[in-house]
Amino acid sequence: MKVKNSLLNYKEVIYQDDDWFKFSMDSVLLANFVTINMNVKRIIDFATGNAPIPMLLSYRTNALIYGVEYQKCIYDLGVESINENGFKDRINLVNGDVRNIKDLFDLESFDVVTCNPPYFKKKDDSHLNDNEVKAIARHEITLNLDDVVKNASCMLKNRGVFAMVHRTERMIEIIEVMKKYRLEPKKIQFIYPKPGKNSDLFLIEGIKNGNSGLKMLSPIIVHNDDNSYSDDVRKLFSDRECD
Amino acid sequence: MKVKNSLLNYKEVIYQDDDWFKFSMDSVLLANFVTINMNVKRIIDFATGNAPIPMLLSYRTNALIYGVEYQKCIYDLGVESINENGFKDRINLVNGDVRNIKDLFDLESFDVVTCNPPYFKKKDDSHLNDNEVKAIARHEITLNLDDVVKNASCMLKNRGVFAMVHRTERMIEIIEVMKKYRLEPKKIQFIYPKPGKNSDLFLIEGIKNGNSGLKMLSPIIVHNDDNSYSDDVRKLFSDRECD
Repeated sequence: MKVKNSLLNYKEVIYQDDDWFKFSMDSVLLANFVTINMNVKRIIDFATGNAPIPMLLSYRTNALIYGVEYQKCIYDLGVESINENGFKDRINLVNGDVRNIKDLFDLESFDVVTCNPPYFKKKDDSHLNDNEVKAIARHEITLNLDDVVKNASCMLKNRGVFAMVHRTERMIEIIEVMKKYRLEPKKIQFIYPKPGKNSDLFLIEGIKNGNSGLKMLSPIIVHNDDNSYSDDVRKLFSDRECD
Repeated sequence: MKVKNSLLNYKEVIYQDDDWFKFSMDSVLLANFVTINMNVKRIIDFATGNAPIPMLLSYRTNALIYGVEYQKCIYDLGVESINENGFKDRINLVNGDVRNIKDLFDLESFDVVTCNPPYFKKKDDSHLNDNEVKAIARHEITLNLDDVVKNASCMLKNRGVFAMVHRTERMIEIIEVMKKYRLEPKKIQFIYPKPGKNSDLFLIEGIKNGNSGLKMLSPIIVHNDDNSYSDDVRKLFSDRECD
């Protein structure tokens, strides 16, 4: 069912569909994590879904922001949100395939690429969602890790920034693929569901043709022992300037 | 100056020399982190210093433990500690070079290799310690990362465990070198000096010829905001059975 939610506590709204997927904390964490300096002019978000990351980034920068989404029905929700919020001049959504990004944009034309990609490998025995739209968003059916990183590297200018949120259990593979496409990992932050638990998600940022040397930010622990949200997370969701 | 300290709060002692180096929290963290299961029969600690890791491991396992130290003066302190504590039957120290480990032990004869190696790259402009003994312990003068990992892999049986503590800023390089020598990273834990600060150290464990899939343990934050030790660290240093 299509629903209209508020985008964090901003006045803006985001259209979602409960049957497909809703934008999640992962997107909020990524939009907060990525380095956006004053010189950033063009940003692109791969697998943008209903465009939470472009909308959240628009609070941090005046750069022109693009989002690419493969699934038409989710893309349509994104367009509706962008239009209703009056973001049309700054956010451009494209209904296209990241694997063919070179047909859509000039090579090395972006300062920043972000991505909250499908997390799970597609295996013959993997339990895919019956709902195909949701399955494509979660499993590497139409877009895998190598596709994401290879095309991000193609789109980035020299010294451009690539930032992604992903499953911690796949970190080693992710670092290998980033190195393969000359995106040197420079900043990482781990997300832990509760104190004392293992990390499930992490944020990673690489610089195209960057030098080695890694910064490991302080961890984000999502819930307190009593399952309430931690102060770290409350800050992300509420300590923002509201109009 | 040679001093006699207690090994944590055990009854055992450890001989150290203030002019060279003292065993540090890094060794305690590593001895606590490494996976030692019931089947472990032989362990070797590379660059063992005055042998804190072999001694601490002896509380966790009945396996035979070896330690290799290149510098004679530090090796001598280790031998003295082992003798005084009555560990001679279970801990064997060797004054030798990890780079020539194949001349000292049979290939693939260990279940576990641990190492708290020299952390810093040797560059022409790096500020080395005037004290040569200390410099060799801290900088990659006689032993570098590639030497450690290559020789660990040679010593380990198939599915053997390699565990190391190192500087977080070098994590990407460390993962690459471990992959190069077929030690698949399986478990990592980051150490943060204080809440809100970046990680300076981390613990990593790999399995020889292991499958991919990483476990990221909950972070260890060493100090509280008021600089007192955190509960995590107090537990490491005091919640042990004492005779």
